[in-house]
Amino acid sequence: MKKFKLIVAYDGTDFHGWQIQPEIRTVAGELKSAAEKILRHEISVTAASRTDTGVHALGQTADFSTDNPIEPSKLLHALNGVLSDDVVVKSTEEVPENFHSTHLSKGKHYRYVIRLSKIDDPLTRRYHWWYRHNLDIGKMISASKFLVGNVDFKGLEINCGKPDVETVREISKIEISRNNDDLIIDVFGKSFMYKLIRSIVGLLVAAGNSKILPEEIPEILSEKNEHRKTDVAPAKGLTLIEVYY
Amino acid sequence: MKKFKLIVAYDGTDFHGWQIQPEIRTVAGELKSAAEKILRHEISVTAASRTDTGVHALGQTADFSTDNPIEPSKLLHALNGVLSDDVVVKSTEEVPENFHSTHLSKGKHYRYVIRLSKIDDPLTRRYHWWYRHNLDIGKMISASKFLVGNVDFKGLEINCGKPDVETVREISKIEISRNNDDLIIDVFGKSFMYKLIRSIVGLLVAAGNSKILPEEIPEILSEKNEHRKTDVAPAKGLTLIEVYY
Repeated sequence: MKKFKLIVAYDGTDFHGWQIQPEIRTVAGELKSAAEKILRHEISVTAASRTDTGVHALGQTADFSTDNPIEPSKLLHALNGVLSDDVVVKSTEEVPENFHSTHLSKGKHYRYVIRLSKIDDPLTRRYHWWYRHNLDIGKMISASKFLVGNVDFKGLEINCGKPDVETVREISKIEISRNNDDLIIDVFGKSFMYKLIRSIVGLLVAAGNSKILPEEIPEILSEKNEHRKTDVAPAKGLTLIEVYY
Repeated sequence: MKKFKLIVAYDGTDFHGWQIQPEIRTVAGELKSAAEKILRHEISVTAASRTDTGVHALGQTADFSTDNPIEPSKLLHALNGVLSDDVVVKSTEEVPENFHSTHLSKGKHYRYVIRLSKIDDPLTRRYHWWYRHNLDIGKMISASKFLVGNVDFKGLEINCGKPDVETVREISKIEISRNNDDLIIDVFGKSFMYKLIRSIVGLLVAAGNSKILPEEIPEILSEKNEHRKTDVAPAKGLTLIEVYY
């Protein structure tokens, strides 16, 4: 048996997220069926992150095992020959059999882009959240301090009603920068819950437009403040940039 | 009567070009029908450039006349409220009745982007030509010297078999630059024939990959060399950046 590690990039717009679902177009589903065509046997695909519907990736990491003696570079070209235009395998590499994309991940870098302009740009609209109003970046940076470290996100109510989901997550860094009309939020952490980054962005935007005070964030996160709900940012602004091993 | 000048941006991927055609989705068709909904009477839309299927615009210029006393800023917001996501009106302005987007244009700036990389980027694939092989930029710059000035493009055979099309065009400047993996070709000129810029890019690429010598270009353009056909570059790499008045 050989194990391959793949770096995968995709435009999430026309996918129902990463995870395989019957009769629905997902990135893992496309990748699995492309690889099975080439390898001529069934495989099981594992990934570092189950990105949601509409979320993009430049550096998703996936792995699968095969009996096929195919060379990594041949696999790379064969996969890109079969896959549709909105998903691209950037690299293939043979790794030890104990490699596991999810469990061995040391951390992930996600980027969220907010376009601050009066008018949207039709050429990049698939990859940012167009936000018409002003945002105070100083307040957003102040707010981000409350979201870094070992943080309990219980109050965000994004655990889909599953009471046993671990709600404490380690966020190592949040960087907020501006590039012309783009407000860029880089989030680095060990692992994330479903919708967590989009909820973090929602909190930062609520601070930036003065709907909440940065100091209120601990209370919102701790479930003590039931009336301070903030919006979850749209999926299309989010891209998984890199996974670290 | 009022005349409005509009700056329009669009992602050309899902349009059959600018020009209105019956029962086909075109940018002018969408704009006309959106404006007619708002103004409540029929209008006729004129543009600076009839961009082809798949060609994008950041600064297309269009105009139409109306009896409706609507304010420019109200028209702007109303249009963007009605139009689909892939076309955006960036500005509206009242202009004198003798304004004409096509005839009064002093020049246009088009940009063509070639992505030079082993692997395509699925997040920007709609806006560049992915080119896997190496290109010698020095040779392309040498070739571009033969394409600037008052040039007769008769030999390119892109005039759709219409013998009366004027084939001499004034190209004022061609700039070729590199930004990471992107090779950017900026073309400035008074007016262009159908497919002319994509043919110019095709010639430059043929020089860059040594299929032709830069010095052969005058011969190719003059129709004397029948065997030196070069490819027309794909539409999706081309964007109309700005029209000058």
